[in-house]
Amino acid sequence: MDDKVIKLFSEKNLVFIATLMKDGSPQLSPVWANYEDGYVLINTAEGRIKHKNVLRDPRVAVSVVSKDNPLDMTTIRGTVDELIPDYEYKHADKLTKQYMNRD
Amino acid sequence: MDDKVIKLFSEKNLVFIATLMKDGSPQLSPVWANYEDGYVLINTAEGRIKHKNVLRDPRVAVSVVSKDNPLDMTTIRGTVDELIPDYEYKHADKLTKQYMNRD
Repeated sequence: MDDKVIKLFSEKNLVFIATLMKDGSPQLSPVWANYEDGYVLINTAEGRIKHKNVLRDPRVAVSVVSKDNPLDMTTIRGTVDELIPDYEYKHADKLTKQYMNRD
Repeated sequence: MDDKVIKLFSEKNLVFIATLMKDGSPQLSPVWANYEDGYVLINTAEGRIKHKNVLRDPRVAVSVVSKDNPLDMTTIRGTVDELIPDYEYKHADKLTKQYMNRD
């Protein structure tokens, strides 16, 4: 991804993720996300609709718009590469820092 | 829709719409939208991906989050009821007023 897009995922911008329901219809959720080593990392709880959806079908779309300039945005279509457990809340804590400025 | 949700669609909040590509994968776009008589109205140009997608499959998801309070949000799954031409830009002008405070 280019630097401008990486920046969008490194700021306090809400990220929207679209997943697919069992019947193939789209589902949409606002989430916190960050960017690490070429991946957009999204944190969610196990058992949430979007988690169940990507277990069944990994195809997703992700959109992010700058809080400060709505013309500064990107939309990505892709697939979930990996589901990474975060039982120690390491990633969740990183996101809290990014979005809330606190540990 | 309840008043709180109607308010979200009546303010300057960006709205995200997820549609389905030909292969069934999700596609996502930030859009301007407003609320009129029980419907969320979204304006787009003919020929755009989301327009082509809803012509083929009207299933969509829509999400909106308040600019002022990210906890104030809603996500809707549904279908496009009608595609309304706006060749005189009447609806586009309404949205410009809503989002940009100008005619």
